[in-house]
Amino acid sequence: MKLGVCYYPEQWSEDIWKQDAAEMVAAGIEWVRIGEFAWSRYEPNPGEYQWEWLQRSLDILGDAGLKVVLGTPTATPPKWLMDQHDDIIAVDEAGNPRNYGSRRHYCFSSETYRTHCRRIVTEMASKFGKHPAIKAWQTDNEYGCHDTILSYSTMALEGFREWCRDRFNDDISALNTAWGNVFWSMEFRDFDEIELPNLTVTESNPAHRLDFWRYSSGCVASYNKLQADILREYSPSLDLIHNYMGNFTDFDHHDVQADLDIASWDSYPLGFLDWSTYNEQEKRQWMRTGHPDFAAFHHDLYRGVGKGRWWVMEQQPGPVNWAPHNPSPLDGMVRLWSWEAFAHGAEVVSYFRWRQAPFAQEQMHSGLKRPDNVDDQGMLEAKQTASEVQLLMSQSTTEADSTHMHKEVAFIFDYVSDWSLRVQPQGNNYNPLHWAISIYTACRKVGVNVDILPPHADLTGYATIVIANQQLEHDGLLQSLKSSDAQIILGPRSFSKTQQYQIPKTLAPGSLQSLIPLKVVRVESLADFWSDDVNKLNASNQQSLTVKRWREFVETDLAPKYKSADGWGLAYQHNNIHYINACLEQDSLNLLLQEILLNNDALTVKPCLGGLRQQKIGKWQFFFNYGPEEQSLPNHRQLVLGTHNLAQGELAICLNEK
Amino acid sequence: MKLGVCYYPEQWSEDIWKQDAAEMVAAGIEWVRIGEFAWSRYEPNPGEYQWEWLQRSLDILGDAGLKVVLGTPTATPPKWLMDQHDDIIAVDEAGNPRNYGSRRHYCFSSETYRTHCRRIVTEMASKFGKHPAIKAWQTDNEYGCHDTILSYSTMALEGFREWCRDRFNDDISALNTAWGNVFWSMEFRDFDEIELPNLTVTESNPAHRLDFWRYSSGCVASYNKLQADILREYSPSLDLIHNYMGNFTDFDHHDVQADLDIASWDSYPLGFLDWSTYNEQEKRQWMRTGHPDFAAFHHDLYRGVGKGRWWVMEQQPGPVNWAPHNPSPLDGMVRLWSWEAFAHGAEVVSYFRWRQAPFAQEQMHSGLKRPDNVDDQGMLEAKQTASEVQLLMSQSTTEADSTHMHKEVAFIFDYVSDWSLRVQPQGNNYNPLHWAISIYTACRKVGVNVDILPPHADLTGYATIVIANQQLEHDGLLQSLKSSDAQIILGPRSFSKTQQYQIPKTLAPGSLQSLIPLKVVRVESLADFWSDDVNKLNASNQQSLTVKRWREFVETDLAPKYKSADGWGLAYQHNNIHYINACLEQDSLNLLLQEILLNNDALTVKPCLGGLRQQKIGKWQFFFNYGPEEQSLPNHRQLVLGTHNLAQGELAICLNEK
Amino acid sequence: MKLGVCYYPEQWSEDIWKQDAAEMVAAGIEWVRIGEFAWSRYEPNPGEYQWEWLQRSLDILGDAGLKVVLGTPTATPPKWLMDQHDDIIAVDEAGNPRNYGSRRHYCFSSETYRTHCRRIVTEMASKFGKHPAIKAWQTDNEYGCHDTILSYSTMALEGFREWCRDRFNDDISALNTAWGNVFWSMEFRDFDEIELPNLTVTESNPAHRLDFWRYSSGCVASYNKLQADILREYSPSLDLIHNYMGNFTDFDHHDVQADLDIASWDSYPLGFLDWSTYNEQEKRQWMRTGHPDFAAFHHDLYRGVGKGRWWVMEQQPGPVNWAPHNPSPLDGMVRLWSWEAFAHGAEVVSYFRWRQAPFAQEQMHSGLKRPDNVDDQGMLEAKQTASEVQLLMSQSTTEADSTHMHKEVAFIFDYVSDWSLRVQPQGNNYNPLHWAISIYTACRKVGVNVDILPPHADLTGYATIVIANQQLEHDGLLQSLKSSDAQIILGPRSFSKTQQYQIPKTLAPGSLQSLIPLKVVRVESLADFWSDDVNKLNASNQQSLTVKRWREFVETDLAPKYKSADGWGLAYQHNNIHYINACLEQDSLNLLLQEILLNNDALTVKPCLGGLRQQKIGKWQFFFNYGPEEQSLPNHRQLVLGTHNLAQGELAICLNEK
Repeated sequence: MKLGVCYYPEQWSEDIWKQDAAEMVAAGIEWVRIGEFAWSRYEPNPGEYQWEWLQRSLDILGDAGLKVVLGTPTATPPKWLMDQHDDIIAVDEAGNPRNYGSRRHYCFSSETYRTHCRRIVTEMASKFGKHPAIKAWQTDNEYGCHDTILSYSTMALEGFREWCRDRFNDDISALNTAWGNVFWSMEFRDFDEIELPNLTVTESNPAHRLDFWRYSSGCVASYNKLQADILREYSPSLDLIHNYMGNFTDFDHHDVQADLDIASWDSYPLGFLDWSTYNEQEKRQWMRTGHPDFAAFHHDLYRGVGKGRWWVMEQQPGPVNWAPHNPSPLDGMVRLWSWEAFAHGAEVVSYFRWRQAPFAQEQMHSGLKRPDNVDDQGMLEAKQTASEVQLLMSQSTTEADSTHMHKEVAFIFDYVSDWSLRVQPQGNNYNPLHWAISIYTACRKVGVNVDILPPHADLTGYATIVIANQQLEHDGLLQSLKSSDAQIILGPRSFSKTQQYQIPKTLAPGSLQSLIPLKVVRVESLADFWSDDVNKLNASNQQSLTVKRWREFVETDLAPKYKSADGWGLAYQHNNIHYINACLEQDSLNLLLQEILLNNDALTVKPCLGGLRQQKIGKWQFFFNYGPEEQSLPNHRQLVLGTHNLAQGELAICLNEK
Repeated sequence: MKLGVCYYPEQWSEDIWKQDAAEMVAAGIEWVRIGEFAWSRYEPNPGEYQWEWLQRSLDILGDAGLKVVLGTPTATPPKWLMDQHDDIIAVDEAGNPRNYGSRRHYCFSSETYRTHCRRIVTEMASKFGKHPAIKAWQTDNEYGCHDTILSYSTMALEGFREWCRDRFNDDISALNTAWGNVFWSMEFRDFDEIELPNLTVTESNPAHRLDFWRYSSGCVASYNKLQADILREYSPSLDLIHNYMGNFTDFDHHDVQADLDIASWDSYPLGFLDWSTYNEQEKRQWMRTGHPDFAAFHHDLYRGVGKGRWWVMEQQPGPVNWAPHNPSPLDGMVRLWSWEAFAHGAEVVSYFRWRQAPFAQEQMHSGLKRPDNVDDQGMLEAKQTASEVQLLMSQSTTEADSTHMHKEVAFIFDYVSDWSLRVQPQGNNYNPLHWAISIYTACRKVGVNVDILPPHADLTGYATIVIANQQLEHDGLLQSLKSSDAQIILGPRSFSKTQQYQIPKTLAPGSLQSLIPLKVVRVESLADFWSDDVNKLNASNQQSLTVKRWREFVETDLAPKYKSADGWGLAYQHNNIHYINACLEQDSLNLLLQEILLNNDALTVKPCLGGLRQQKIGKWQFFFNYGPEEQSLPNHRQLVLGTHNLAQGELAICLNEK
Repeated sequence: MKLGVCYYPEQWSEDIWKQDAAEMVAAGIEWVRIGEFAWSRYEPNPGEYQWEWLQRSLDILGDAGLKVVLGTPTATPPKWLMDQHDDIIAVDEAGNPRNYGSRRHYCFSSETYRTHCRRIVTEMASKFGKHPAIKAWQTDNEYGCHDTILSYSTMALEGFREWCRDRFNDDISALNTAWGNVFWSMEFRDFDEIELPNLTVTESNPAHRLDFWRYSSGCVASYNKLQADILREYSPSLDLIHNYMGNFTDFDHHDVQADLDIASWDSYPLGFLDWSTYNEQEKRQWMRTGHPDFAAFHHDLYRGVGKGRWWVMEQQPGPVNWAPHNPSPLDGMVRLWSWEAFAHGAEVVSYFRWRQAPFAQEQMHSGLKRPDNVDDQGMLEAKQTASEVQLLMSQSTTEADSTHMHKEVAFIFDYVSDWSLRVQPQGNNYNPLHWAISIYTACRKVGVNVDILPPHADLTGYATIVIANQQLEHDGLLQSLKSSDAQIILGPRSFSKTQQYQIPKTLAPGSLQSLIPLKVVRVESLADFWSDDVNKLNASNQQSLTVKRWREFVETDLAPKYKSADGWGLAYQHNNIHYINACLEQDSLNLLLQEILLNNDALTVKPCLGGLRQQKIGKWQFFFNYGPEEQSLPNHRQLVLGTHNLAQGELAICLNEK
């Protein structure tokens, strides 16, 4: 539980660097990230490096006692490099170049660009790899930001053809069969006939698109590895980090993370909310606090990606500039967001940025300090957080007291399935990530800890396993489920496609039918104006749930838990296996999940009212109130921090009950 | 009244072909369409044909007693052909190529592509033109699907310049005058200076665009003729068919049909509904049944196109995959849709498709059989329909008993006027096809049979003639109207432009002023938020109608039937001629048409309640209930099929009363 | 107070020219504009001029006693010229050419096109510069129409690089510092490395975009000067005019006007309303009258641009064709619109157009005469206006009686700030022009005369100065304000950026802090679903205002006038300076401005009910009723024209009260 900050020495006069460093330390900040956008200052002319200023900056920060994360500057190649080569830029789906003039103006498939990345990273690592102030490296910045994973360049075309050749063992008929190319005479005679799946007259083959996505994700991993290998060579003992994003799943983060030590993400609870697919009412409700489960979902996701080691690399410190609208957070939220991250196990929460810049694109993005160098609200809350962390640490006797994560619910989130569901959502209001977060929300509403894991993860020790978005059949996961005696909850569309994006021979849920005897024989996607109420069978109180957007018709001898007026049944159970065969409104989903989880004696299920949320870590249990109504904790709970009555934006820390 | 099915032998293992054929026959299916997407299997390498599998497939189907419609495969040219030539693909309005990767990746103006079409069709026709199983040919597939009529390629530019040269007898000043090119200095000095009307700074000349549409439509006709001529040569006794689409008017279907024998269309009542411009409330109401008049409109339209001979080539059998949302039809609708088509005179209703494919773009498009080869709901309803057809046929003594169409209302629909109204709709909520269907709906709501005909059709024998969308003056139609003593109903914008897209010298309704003494001196288009109630004059019950979107101000001595509070008048009559000078809400339009048609003693007008619809053919009258409320038929009606009380999705067949 | 009309002799048979001219005179029309789209008739082939028809037309118009404004035809270069040169057309932001086929198909940066403009204008001016019928020249037509100011062509790129070199004195590091290019490594090494700010991966640098806008605006001015210099040379005594547009601020009109004598604009109250950002309810309310303040705003704006001399060059005479929907004006509005212009000091109101054309793009645009040459409603109202003008003139003894504008409120509108606010609006519902008009409306609702002026204007003599949209610090304006003892009202975002688009070192409102002791330390932009009620402090009647979209948090010792429930304060006053630190709903803004203006004893503030508006000129005060409710004037008011009770669309002219 440490605080950090993002800092851009190159953007400020050198005479305030020392004072900045001193103020950071005084504020309780221990980590500082620098350097990730400074290529034009590292190498102002081709091959002509200027490292002195970075050296001075590192010395000052190190002398002040700060630990530095140094970023490789490859998210912003300088103009002269772009002018030297016309095979660096990416191409968008419409065939237009994505030119120089902002950032991320490169294609992951460009070998030319990789050569230059290798060069600049080697220069940096060889110069600074052993600098005592540097305690970690960050590779590049926010892979995929501004939709930069899928590029339709000629470099990508060539790369994809080779990738296909490898995947299908140089057998083009295997590819034709796998993709079903006999349909619409799409058969290729050779791998060199394959095109990228854009600019077609109508929808291109979904299997083609899914494989192009796999290829593109793989490019990110190999691009990251290229940098990581160099950094390891020169700084074998330092941690390697990348800062991932929220609401972003365009590449498989586990593949990238394989070459790194710590996962981190950039958490902007208000910016992401306005950008998201939440509806107007939800946005109004959470506009100054962020959605109570959005950051938490990502905390749990990236803890899984980092195999337990994770940071918030950029924490929103006030209003930002880049969302459609940019409200000011409720006072107290910067502190609450910081604590929510620590409650989920963050090693470091690092604010973006130290001081608001008075120029360029992000001049309206607040920092801990205002452009006139006065402390902003975020600074006050950061300082409060820092002193509260000290208090908490003082009550912690073992490492585990503040870091141990309790295994309760394993939540399977598969990146490849996220793509496959987007490749052919079947209904244009079906947002698979939103639906996954919706299931996550339902779990969090009953107060259980959730670990978000990939399908190949070890699932032993969990009381409940939730399959959130696993559209593609997965043998490893099937084996894990078969050998588990946990409660297993399968969401709609589970295992409804093979890995090669075909319908399983036995229909959905494919090989999961060995766990639960039912078959999905028809599905329907429904516009937002449609909804259907289903009633609980055999219930004294006629609980009713609302189904929306997606329904599956199943063939089974099992009895559903709920039925609609026209006889359609919802939610089936077979031993420890549950299958939810529709999408539901959030409140209904909360009720259904609560009902299922309450049946699990291995779990402590405690519904959270309103905007209250809770999270256990080590010996503590955290309570956060995101909602406008005051929420009370039971009088007997033993407080470490805060009070029993939480107004909006307040938090309390109690000792765990057991 | 026969059933058919669409089948793709190339997509299935050869060992199940025989069983498939046997099951088709057992289900009561007599026709099967195959082959229209199989070019890559016919000619896997340039000039290297493989016809054996097609031969075996035809033999199996023929041996089982099925009649085959064989499709030419030109909607899906294979990759190697596209790679050989860069002058095949079309270009969209924004100037982007519409590349290979799905289907219909060709420009109708490409001479190169026509050469290859000629080659493959000649090969097929010469090989199979006399195969005993083949009873008809289909040319290509769904001309225009995915917006493929208007292409802005250099081939189109060259073709259009020649077309203009012909149309204006090589006299560029005639073109300048016709288009009004003096406006904005748009005058050309030579036909080679003409450009395509895209990528302009603001709106291009509407006369220019209308002529480009005429040219583009003509290209479809000549392209189709090229194939038809070859097929005729090798199969002089077989019927030639094309499968048109719903909600699609981008080319003049009568011109294409001139070279064919049977018109057919692909009927997807739910898919088209979600794709359409109906509002949310209408879509919710009909989401599982389809709009009660949408398919019927197209049945009557294509019966006119086919001069009486028409099929449904593709009938939706369950949920489809390609609409924004894809609900499951109400049980019974597949049967109802089939019977609605037969009631309108369809010779064949053919389901798309036999078995759902587990791969490629349409893997979520249902078939009569599921991917696991089990009968789906559509199959049950197809079988029921087949046996009911047998029952009906057993009660039919002459051919006419089941095929005679009763002449009641002639409904004029002009493709060229549809384009001219879209070229300059004057208000962006004016959808001319939607408005035409709205008038059709009002006729159908009073239970009369409607024939949809082109303006040059013979109109003798009809009790009422409705001019739905004839914006362009038409001499032939004017003569037909002049010589008719039928009741004539002219819709707004009738004859408001010359054929060359200018305002008539005498203003609208142009030469129709010889029929009714009124002149439109001003028009206005109005946003959806506007509406005006008009009250019936000289009525004891103050009937009021609601006007929307479009109003015309007329100069006339005739008294209007209705007036608004500010004195504006609606609906004029002069002898047998009615002029409706505004657009109305559907319910109001229904009332107005009912009022007019009730005055016609030659018609039997009987308003249909709720979702009930009726249709007469031969000796029978059909009743269909699309709506949620039960509808009752009079007790005295003599039933051939069904009951007097129809729940939603049910139908009844009675003997005609007369 | 003269009437005029726009006329296209080249579009009509020569034998009706004489009759047209006679009818114009008979209608009371004195001015006629011709020729601005006739290049293809002036020069049908390269270098082959045909001036005879223009000579005959001018002779006929002059002989009839009409005064002609002759337009240069450069808005519509002919096809042959476009074919000769590929460096004329503009390029849109997406990189697509904006081709020939409508109008304005040229890039202001094209030297080639300037050469041809010089040639055709010289030919016309040398031939007709002394023709006795010509009393004024119009340069080109509607600069910027169809979004044609910003062009991303290679010509523009070259021009912009040179412009930057000049602006930054050939010092690239000055540019890098000014734009803040160190951010994201955007630093250039040379001016030739600068690119246009389009096609970037994400947002380009706002300072870069603002300077590109400055460059583009400058191109319009130099392009116009090129023509004006030639016209001056050949017609030194004639007035030079350009016809600007409504709702259009993409270039600095003051810069263009520097080379002209009279400003004019094209006023389409209904067309602009439908095109605008007004919401559905506002559009419904004003769909047949236009918004009561929209034309008035532009009248006051262009009077300022023309330094007192201004016309309406094109006045909407009935329904137009080019808006999304095109309703018919309420009878009487053509007259009312004409008088509103005269009341604001228009020298001439000229109707567009004489007779509706039956062909080409604008065939549905009404004129004073219908296409069948019958007088349309607009003609009747023009004639009435003409005779009423005569009546008024007969009561005017001095020139000043009908032309003197009363100095009351100076309203500062800065074109460059309009661009800077659009370059980075911070909230996507922030439309700076709409907000400026909103403030203007609030002033007009209390019945004061408003002069809209640039920031460098002389502000002496005004009772109130309103700073509407001055985002950029402006030294000249600051000095004017400092030396003024007028009431000064500063809107939100005032002086919040330096001229180089950076945050001022002392934060907003920058150097204005020398006038009022407050500092904006945080801003927030808010979605439309958000609003906050603020209550007046120290008020017996609890007046409450509604804040929307934009809030500023200020640090100050001043007390706010209003407070919200959470303590946020609105509206501060220090001596004669007011600062409004938020956007408000229109009704609330009206109340707040009324409250502030009522405190100004130097102003006569009289709230206007409903749709009533008033305007003083010379010895008269005008009253216009745009709204549906009848409005009454006080009985004692002395009428020159009209009555004391005004129905919708009616007006009254009274003698000024003093």
